[in-house]
Amino acid sequence: MSDTDLAFASIEEVGKLFRKRKLSPVELTKLMLARIERLNPKLNAYLTVSAQIALAQAKKAETELFAPRGRKGHRDRGPLHGIPISLKDNIYTRGIRTTAGSKILRDFIPDADAGVFAQLKNAGAILLGKTNMHEFAYGVTSNNPHYGPVHNPWDLARIPGGSSGGSAAAVAAGLCFGSIGTDTGGSIRIPAALCGVVGLKPTIGRVPTDGTVPISPRLDCVGPLARTVQDAAFLLDPILVRAKREPLLSLACKPSSRTRGFKLGLPSELFFDVVSDDVLRIFQTALHSLRKVGARIEDVSMPLLAETEDAGNQIAWPEATHYHQQAGWFPARAAEYGEDVRSRLEIGTKVSATVYLQALELRDEFIQQLHLAMADAGVDGLVVPTSPITAPLLNDESTRLNESDHPTRALLLRNNRPANLAGVPAISIPCGFTSSGLPVGLQIIGQSWQEKTILRIAHAFEGTHDCHLHRPPLFA
Amino acid sequence: MSDTDLAFASIEEVGKLFRKRKLSPVELTKLMLARIERLNPKLNAYLTVSAQIALAQAKKAETELFAPRGRKGHRDRGPLHGIPISLKDNIYTRGIRTTAGSKILRDFIPDADAGVFAQLKNAGAILLGKTNMHEFAYGVTSNNPHYGPVHNPWDLARIPGGSSGGSAAAVAAGLCFGSIGTDTGGSIRIPAALCGVVGLKPTIGRVPTDGTVPISPRLDCVGPLARTVQDAAFLLDPILVRAKREPLLSLACKPSSRTRGFKLGLPSELFFDVVSDDVLRIFQTALHSLRKVGARIEDVSMPLLAETEDAGNQIAWPEATHYHQQAGWFPARAAEYGEDVRSRLEIGTKVSATVYLQALELRDEFIQQLHLAMADAGVDGLVVPTSPITAPLLNDESTRLNESDHPTRALLLRNNRPANLAGVPAISIPCGFTSSGLPVGLQIIGQSWQEKTILRIAHAFEGTHDCHLHRPPLFA
Repeated sequence: MSDTDLAFASIEEVGKLFRKRKLSPVELTKLMLARIERLNPKLNAYLTVSAQIALAQAKKAETELFAPRGRKGHRDRGPLHGIPISLKDNIYTRGIRTTAGSKILRDFIPDADAGVFAQLKNAGAILLGKTNMHEFAYGVTSNNPHYGPVHNPWDLARIPGGSSGGSAAAVAAGLCFGSIGTDTGGSIRIPAALCGVVGLKPTIGRVPTDGTVPISPRLDCVGPLARTVQDAAFLLDPILVRAKREPLLSLACKPSSRTRGFKLGLPSELFFDVVSDDVLRIFQTALHSLRKVGARIEDVSMPLLAETEDAGNQIAWPEATHYHQQAGWFPARAAEYGEDVRSRLEIGTKVSATVYLQALELRDEFIQQLHLAMADAGVDGLVVPTSPITAPLLNDESTRLNESDHPTRALLLRNNRPANLAGVPAISIPCGFTSSGLPVGLQIIGQSWQEKTILRIAHAFEGTHDCHLHRPPLFA
Repeated sequence: MSDTDLAFASIEEVGKLFRKRKLSPVELTKLMLARIERLNPKLNAYLTVSAQIALAQAKKAETELFAPRGRKGHRDRGPLHGIPISLKDNIYTRGIRTTAGSKILRDFIPDADAGVFAQLKNAGAILLGKTNMHEFAYGVTSNNPHYGPVHNPWDLARIPGGSSGGSAAAVAAGLCFGSIGTDTGGSIRIPAALCGVVGLKPTIGRVPTDGTVPISPRLDCVGPLARTVQDAAFLLDPILVRAKREPLLSLACKPSSRTRGFKLGLPSELFFDVVSDDVLRIFQTALHSLRKVGARIEDVSMPLLAETEDAGNQIAWPEATHYHQQAGWFPARAAEYGEDVRSRLEIGTKVSATVYLQALELRDEFIQQLHLAMADAGVDGLVVPTSPITAPLLNDESTRLNESDHPTRALLLRNNRPANLAGVPAISIPCGFTSSGLPVGLQIIGQSWQEKTILRIAHAFEGTHDCHLHRPPLFA
């Protein structure tokens, strides 16, 4: 297998090579570090490369995996053992700076790991480095004013989406085998869609958020980005809160799981109001593929969807501002923020408590409506385009659609926020490419704590096409 | 026993008379209804007298209690069986109007009972009527602009305190054997102190609040007012959420409970900063009595106490306004509110969400500080004056203390809000009278879910004096 093929291999493939001693974690880590050194300058996906720590972890993984089975020292930690990954730079890493993409935290070195990183280390994963992101995860472009913009691997003139833009770009370009991001209004799924990778936002509370720089405690989630559904499940398994006898989520990606049928809801409101022709066409083809693997698809109405955008803002804005006030950064160090983040922090001071309480109430009503609508229709999930548009150019502030201009930020958030507001899990998977070679994402939104169901459906859908096998030409 | 003696008897005494067939629930109910008819015009404590329903309930109680033991039809529902009580008029009563002291709900007749009323009916209590209160429970004077002020039974020119002013006045004047009130910032304890009765605010969540008109879901509590600690425990037992094998709270008032020693904390901050000489002198005597029944008393410092007033307002104001907005009353029907309530509802629109979130955070810190301070000192409770002043005149807007003027409302709230902010239980019991014959209240604040402990201490203290045996001369 060529070095490039190795870099784009699945976690399972790499694991098999390790266990046949045909590849060593140290070799693979060196190969990935060399790739990052060579290719990251095009993408600006990594802010910090933790080469020494990665090599030490790889050496340890190699010692454990390669010690003869049954002998002292042998240990197989499972699918992630020896697998090089990255973390979004708002996730605390002990001894490694964690900037959250901000100037304010430029020199911040945490003295403890985030819970998710501790779990991943325990599962044997190797940290290549920390990925670039929208400043403080508070935006969806990843045009970082302090460290430079992240570029989209499919077209360097375009954004990767955000806020986990560096994670998505690194995964798509074969600069890691998976990454952990955060998602408050779509920050995992938007860049996953725009970069042609898989991104999963779990149920709120399903993955601990301790040791991550927050935006909005009522909306924030931590989750994986990867090239395949199974890879995403491998990353999710060690970090999620699991019931005692709950099977591993990655089992949902076994071929035997594909055989069962499933039913998906097509929401009548919001999601299809503003969608580009390209995205709509590819989405329709995806629905056709879903039907071919046994999906029944039915319209589902949830009138409160129309109010989710405002409610999401009214919760996220003051909660974000509150955090920055408590930290002593805002307004004291207002000049050190990028313009867009600063202006959103200012908006957050203007939301009244009664409006905030009303938004929390709308959230409760929406959660009820969503669950009742899904239960009534008997659907396992909702299926929608993740983003109504493909990756915009780096400085596109607005996008023309249906003969009117739409703010790009709002378009990117639009179809993602409902799952945050309801706290339900949602996955974005690649479902096709436009004629100009830009990826399109399909989103499946599930019921609370039913990550397994959406993984199963996503995996079945993935089997109908070869999108996940495409590689961005510049990095292939 | 004279009719007046009967009206002022304890619940236990009445229960014994019932069970010896020396008094019947119907007789007692008629006696109480006659008393209300004769004396309520002086106090304006009742807004609605439910005579017919009371008599029907009394008849049922009589049938059950007086049927020969062992025969069909006999049933003894326990200490409250056949006992005439009242409910504050913000507690839903099916078929009986529930005004919450407001003009807006002047004709509101609920179609279901509040959970607490259903439980009390099930325990055999008899509803005499609904008591007057501060409009929407949003104030501490009970000067009701729509139904007239409630008067203090000890001096009709003075307020009973509020918001559960009618309940406290009715209990103190022997117009019922106990009452259920609500307490968001002191609304049970303040009128209990000013009227010389016992008032208990339970741990938040300990007594369900369903079917009560809310102010602030994060601070609202429902609890009893009564003439003795044991009577309060009898009223609390049927309405509280109880662990499976948890003994009845009223057992804390058995003589055997008195023998154990206890330790109380005297807070260094807030509670003694502004206290009238009268109240301080009587409080000091009470401490002496507490020591005589085995209490050790120790200073306890909780610096965050100083911030509880602001934090309480910043939570209560927007939550109250939010409720009135959601109900469609504010600002649409602003003219129908009394001036003070309307102005507080207006203040509620001006609190920003970030300030609200900061107050919630301060609440969390305060809860931690309170529990740690009490645990470190090994105290069972804190002991403080319930109110720094005795009952003010009906229209006293401010009170002169320590050579400066203080807003009366703030003075009355001052020592009560900390227990609401922390969600911990607190009881006010009479501890003496000023030379002008006005009662003074002692407050014991406990640890969460430790109602039993503060009842035990309050009961031991009650045994040291005869305050609870005094009757307001006009009603004696």
